[in-house]
Amino acid sequence: MKKINIYDESGFSDKAFKKLLVHDSPYFKILNFNFKEGQELPVHSHEIEGQVSIAILEGRGEFLGKDETTLSAQPGDVLISDISEPHGVRAKSDMRVLVTIAPPI
Amino acid sequence: MKKINIYDESGFSDKAFKKLLVHDSPYFKILNFNFKEGQELPVHSHEIEGQVSIAILEGRGEFLGKDETTLSAQPGDVLISDISEPHGVRAKSDMRVLVTIAPPI
Repeated sequence: MKKINIYDESGFSDKAFKKLLVHDSPYFKILNFNFKEGQELPVHSHEIEGQVSIAILEGRGEFLGKDETTLSAQPGDVLISDISEPHGVRAKSDMRVLVTIAPPI
Repeated sequence: MKKINIYDESGFSDKAFKKLLVHDSPYFKILNFNFKEGQELPVHSHEIEGQVSIAILEGRGEFLGKDETTLSAQPGDVLISDISEPHGVRAKSDMRVLVTIAPPI
């Protein structure tokens, strides 16, 4: 067993969102992204098999999809997307999210 | 893309911890467990390949391991365990956790 506290291990930056690699294995990759208000992970996709989950731990914002679609994002929200489907996140307040990618990219 | 808010979709029960299936696919299974103070997911393991992550969203408690070992559990903690390695959770306050299993059991 391995434990990491993402609140202790990572903070926020005015320059760009902060990215923390929590775990990487043949089974999944787990990342923590911290966004200051207004920062975003732009819409992107990769033509590979697999799915990504994005869980909102703190803060509010939007999930971004194809053709500029958005879905509100708040604590407790879990978004599931194919890796091949356009997805992104934009923060409307300081926001911490936990991302899991399986299989890992 | 699919979104679910686990705070809206599940609550707490005095009888036993509440289990919500958030997502199941060939890539991973995502579950939300809500524990009232004192409830627990007993230590268990399965002799199969793969790993499980347990993220603490709210509340405090302990991660349980083999031979009665424990690790404190608080918001922001992410535990990674092989599925074949004994693991469990015990709540010391009302606690919400997000569990991801890859590949899905």
